[in-house]
Amino acid sequence: MLVVMQHGATAEDVTRVVALIEEMGYGARPMPGAQRTAVGVVGNDGRIDGSRFEALPGVAQVISVTQPYKQVSREWRPENTVVTIAPGVSFGGAEIPVIAGPCSVEGEQQIVAAAQAVRAAGAAALRGGAYKPRSSPYSFQGLGKRGLEMLALARRETGLAIVTEALDDEGAQLVAEHADCIQIGARNMQNYALLKTVGRLGKPVLLKRGMAATIADLLLSAEYILAEGNPHVILCERGVRSFDPMTRNLFDLTAVPLVHKLSHLPIIADPSHGTGLRDLVPPMARAALAAGADGLIVEVHPTPDRARSDGAQSLYPDQFARLMEEMRAIAGTLGRTLTPAPGTAAASVG
Amino acid sequence: MLVVMQHGATAEDVTRVVALIEEMGYGARPMPGAQRTAVGVVGNDGRIDGSRFEALPGVAQVISVTQPYKQVSREWRPENTVVTIAPGVSFGGAEIPVIAGPCSVEGEQQIVAAAQAVRAAGAAALRGGAYKPRSSPYSFQGLGKRGLEMLALARRETGLAIVTEALDDEGAQLVAEHADCIQIGARNMQNYALLKTVGRLGKPVLLKRGMAATIADLLLSAEYILAEGNPHVILCERGVRSFDPMTRNLFDLTAVPLVHKLSHLPIIADPSHGTGLRDLVPPMARAALAAGADGLIVEVHPTPDRARSDGAQSLYPDQFARLMEEMRAIAGTLGRTLTPAPGTAAASVG
Amino acid sequence: MLVVMQHGATAEDVTRVVALIEEMGYGARPMPGAQRTAVGVVGNDGRIDGSRFEALPGVAQVISVTQPYKQVSREWRPENTVVTIAPGVSFGGAEIPVIAGPCSVEGEQQIVAAAQAVRAAGAAALRGGAYKPRSSPYSFQGLGKRGLEMLALARRETGLAIVTEALDDEGAQLVAEHADCIQIGARNMQNYALLKTVGRLGKPVLLKRGMAATIADLLLSAEYILAEGNPHVILCERGVRSFDPMTRNLFDLTAVPLVHKLSHLPIIADPSHGTGLRDLVPPMARAALAAGADGLIVEVHPTPDRARSDGAQSLYPDQFARLMEEMRAIAGTLGRTLTPAPGTAAASVG
Amino acid sequence: MLVVMQHGATAEDVTRVVALIEEMGYGARPMPGAQRTAVGVVGNDGRIDGSRFEALPGVAQVISVTQPYKQVSREWRPENTVVTIAPGVSFGGAEIPVIAGPCSVEGEQQIVAAAQAVRAAGAAALRGGAYKPRSSPYSFQGLGKRGLEMLALARRETGLAIVTEALDDEGAQLVAEHADCIQIGARNMQNYALLKTVGRLGKPVLLKRGMAATIADLLLSAEYILAEGNPHVILCERGVRSFDPMTRNLFDLTAVPLVHKLSHLPIIADPSHGTGLRDLVPPMARAALAAGADGLIVEVHPTPDRARSDGAQSLYPDQFARLMEEMRAIAGTLGRTLTPAPGTAAASVG
Repeated sequence: MLVVMQHGATAEDVTRVVALIEEMGYGARPMPGAQRTAVGVVGNDGRIDGSRFEALPGVAQVISVTQPYKQVSREWRPENTVVTIAPGVSFGGAEIPVIAGPCSVEGEQQIVAAAQAVRAAGAAALRGGAYKPRSSPYSFQGLGKRGLEMLALARRETGLAIVTEALDDEGAQLVAEHADCIQIGARNMQNYALLKTVGRLGKPVLLKRGMAATIADLLLSAEYILAEGNPHVILCERGVRSFDPMTRNLFDLTAVPLVHKLSHLPIIADPSHGTGLRDLVPPMARAALAAGADGLIVEVHPTPDRARSDGAQSLYPDQFARLMEEMRAIAGTLGRTLTPAPGTAAASVG
Repeated sequence: MLVVMQHGATAEDVTRVVALIEEMGYGARPMPGAQRTAVGVVGNDGRIDGSRFEALPGVAQVISVTQPYKQVSREWRPENTVVTIAPGVSFGGAEIPVIAGPCSVEGEQQIVAAAQAVRAAGAAALRGGAYKPRSSPYSFQGLGKRGLEMLALARRETGLAIVTEALDDEGAQLVAEHADCIQIGARNMQNYALLKTVGRLGKPVLLKRGMAATIADLLLSAEYILAEGNPHVILCERGVRSFDPMTRNLFDLTAVPLVHKLSHLPIIADPSHGTGLRDLVPPMARAALAAGADGLIVEVHPTPDRARSDGAQSLYPDQFARLMEEMRAIAGTLGRTLTPAPGTAAASVG
Repeated sequence: MLVVMQHGATAEDVTRVVALIEEMGYGARPMPGAQRTAVGVVGNDGRIDGSRFEALPGVAQVISVTQPYKQVSREWRPENTVVTIAPGVSFGGAEIPVIAGPCSVEGEQQIVAAAQAVRAAGAAALRGGAYKPRSSPYSFQGLGKRGLEMLALARRETGLAIVTEALDDEGAQLVAEHADCIQIGARNMQNYALLKTVGRLGKPVLLKRGMAATIADLLLSAEYILAEGNPHVILCERGVRSFDPMTRNLFDLTAVPLVHKLSHLPIIADPSHGTGLRDLVPPMARAALAAGADGLIVEVHPTPDRARSDGAQSLYPDQFARLMEEMRAIAGTLGRTLTPAPGTAAASVG
Repeated sequence: MLVVMQHGATAEDVTRVVALIEEMGYGARPMPGAQRTAVGVVGNDGRIDGSRFEALPGVAQVISVTQPYKQVSREWRPENTVVTIAPGVSFGGAEIPVIAGPCSVEGEQQIVAAAQAVRAAGAAALRGGAYKPRSSPYSFQGLGKRGLEMLALARRETGLAIVTEALDDEGAQLVAEHADCIQIGARNMQNYALLKTVGRLGKPVLLKRGMAATIADLLLSAEYILAEGNPHVILCERGVRSFDPMTRNLFDLTAVPLVHKLSHLPIIADPSHGTGLRDLVPPMARAALAAGADGLIVEVHPTPDRARSDGAQSLYPDQFARLMEEMRAIAGTLGRTLTPAPGTAAASVG
């Protein structure tokens, strides 16, 4: 940590800062500059609350050079973490699983049809919301426990792993029982109570980036889960709030290589929420792979114009099949392959 | 709702849109323009999911003209809602209560000293966190239930109403038992499970705007609480995420008159989180009042440089006392008064 | 400046950083921490380009603690700069001038009527665009030189000082001849060629904050003007780009006390562009004064529903007159007064 | 255009809106809804200023459904525009040119070495700033006309086309004489005087997106150039302002497919400014190609740690050579090829 003094700070002001640092048990190293003096803190173990210094006279700014996150950092663990959600479906290795399916589970027939369609195109896992966080209390909120049972049925029919969202403790418990991976949505990225719950459940977690979360915020939220003893965390970029109304969100793909640099956790991308418009999904899905994403999550609906939510960003099944072909080719240029659909031999790269 | 067709949309495309509108039970009104045709939906009761149209060929854009929120809107209820959290402490009327106190409850002595200091300066309510949502799992997380008991003690000592945050269902229940108003923080603004819980508890709720929430998002989150039968909701502007690192947040005071225009609910302002720097708090607190805020929530700490959190944005007690004087004068120019501290006569305007 | 090393940086990496610092003629002060080492630069005169260090192996981050701006800083000049644009019209002192008038000069009759109306309500200066920067090349672009002549006529008729925008070198020259203060708009805040031109003209400059400019960016743009020898710069907050489509911009009033803290230059506020909606202008104008603004610039049109641009955010003359009364009262609570209209005695505080 | 009335608007309010629409020469089509009435404007030719309606009593909102840009739109011209800046170097066709080189021209030796290095790796054009827009007036501002002459020398030595920035009218004239393509930087994207100048010069223009420009803003700025008769415009995504300090900008690659949908103009991407960190450039360059970019502009410096600007985001020559290989492979999967360096046979796709 570095305490930067104001231009006009007195020697006494500097002394006061030095004294507080030493009182806290650290070393203080003043550095006079041409414009101003800064005081370095030596031996900071990451637990100093810098705001105590900001309150002192003559202090201009407190700068932290210690990362606030630990267990999620690549400095803590240099090699990649590989998160396996079901046999053969792992994130963070050379194989890249694609999770696909509708926004919401709407009924048995719909979810099974969707599962069969995405499996046929090569998806390794099925997505579909049973609990839907909707901005309006009057919008369709999902089928709840019945939706989870339909997902479990779709798994029996197709062998696909299941990824679905939980909104509260009770839901997390039920999702853990019925599915392979618990999704924490963007709106709940800083719902620390829920993060602790899924940390304790020990089940793989797909943690989506919040609407205005920095990468450090995202990593800190993951840290909450790891701190409870659950290392099976997959991060997900899904776009942040934008000033441009033309797209639903601003899809920040740089998050992918940035997370790879800072953390050992895998990161996947969601081009459906990232863009919000069907036509933009295939190019941005390709881009996500090229940026190094460890997986993709894509909305596909058997009949998008009949979808109860997110119809405009859901791919038609044949569009998705074409996209899978394109993604296989791009993965090949990076020395990676798409995870094959369950029960099929690995797809060869074209 | 208005379905805007692409420039090159065919007559058949338009017919398909008209047919879907009518199939949904509404009237369709095509409007040919020089550049493109638009189709108006007549009789929309607010439940149409526009994304179904976006999926159709020839459709460029779907524009909603119906507000997604209802019970919170001024169109639903033209007169102001006045939310009373304790005898004599009401938000939304001519009197303006100031809530003040430390970021966190740190101990009995600290919270009682803080309560006495802010009461002496004229505050009507005490803030102080027993449950703290911290970005890092390793930061101080609050004293929990013991903290709530200390707040209750401070109320007995001073008569101040108590406002404190809840992070989950269990905490909400405990806060409802010990305090006068349950705060939902920015990170949980879209934690719909928690919103429903506090809706059912029926206790007054202070709902803070999320980091990247639009005003419509904020109103929709309030709608979740009202939809559960709890009309006692106070909104709070506390700054949104900014690209400028110089302040903690970007304090969006325009939210105050904008909420007054769109909703009957009271709205207060939090200049401490809105700015993050002690020196900026008094001018922005004055500005909030001048913009029409129905209350203020301000961090004040007996010894800010010893605070366990948010020290840099906490006012010294004497600074707060001066600010109260300034705010009294500004309230007077608007024909309003500050709510007097409990047990004191109404302060006269200087 | 502080060069922060990665966790795994080698002793050789640190040595390389130290060597480069010393080669550049500064002192290097390594500070080993529990997690990582940082190297302080001693004697930095503000001219080091930190990016040279970011390129070295083992370097995690380079942190600048030196402000990039100089002459505009309060450290350079502790007392307020007072900028006088016409006799009796000064920004930065106890008196607060209000600049008012239409978005565009539309004709002789319109601008003179507007000038008379705003003068009657107590404005000290007249605004009105002769050169309009419009997003679309097909929108009304202003009357140009003829517009400037109409502004000069309005000055002769009313005695009001004239503030109007220049878009290029030639226009700046003409504005300097016809008006009292050259406005540089948000879109040109980083048009450094134009900043240098108005720096050399020596005429007072009203510099508006850019759409996504940080306060440091704004101060650096002002530095360009001061560096050419022109100290007569008035800054202006007019809102930044927002993710919320409900308002035209996000009016960042915290800029006012923040600029006062960092710089000796005066800063005024533009609630018309800051909000974009007439109903929001009066409360936010009051808020700007309460935050300490050294002036206001407000759009007022004799007949807003006939305006050729910005009609929706222009006040009606009687609305403006009421607002002036409210602002006089607020200024009074801060020990300030509104600058009286030319030829009138100072208004007494109500 | 659609004029949306307030819930409580009277029949008289609606009549007034209808009358104004008809007075302006258009047709009015009222559409009563369950919550509110909207009035459609029939025959809108794109010139109506909606703000005139916002001023009327009972009006809640005015919604434009007409695009403000024309000549740049795909509706105006369905087929792609191909912009050729030098023989064999075209943007918008199947071949993808890569522009590479240092941030600034620093000297003859440096720019020629850079040119040779990037040509050897397969670049088709050379970048390098002779006029540098720097936030601080005290930073290195470029070598000016001498820099342009050095770029011309580098072209003679290598055959590479030259792309370089102009900041004002005089500079634009000189760039047009010495280079093949005039770059307009992000800070000048809405400097309409400069846009008109380069429109009149008729030379190819590389127009970079502004810091907070929407895609519509970018297209409107391009429209200024086309409206002067110059159709040779290449757009460039280079990142927008972000709330996350970890990257220099937020690289918005969705701009690529979005521009392709809305406009016939080619769009390229600048991952160097888009990310600001060398390690992030290769993955994001690959991502840009996969998203469909029509070209790349990348900072490469012979000795980045000696660069006078942007050293931290400049690639080493060997890094760039590896990236070119990766990009060739990705282009191949999309059925495209990289434009070969001048004087070499087309590279075959691996």
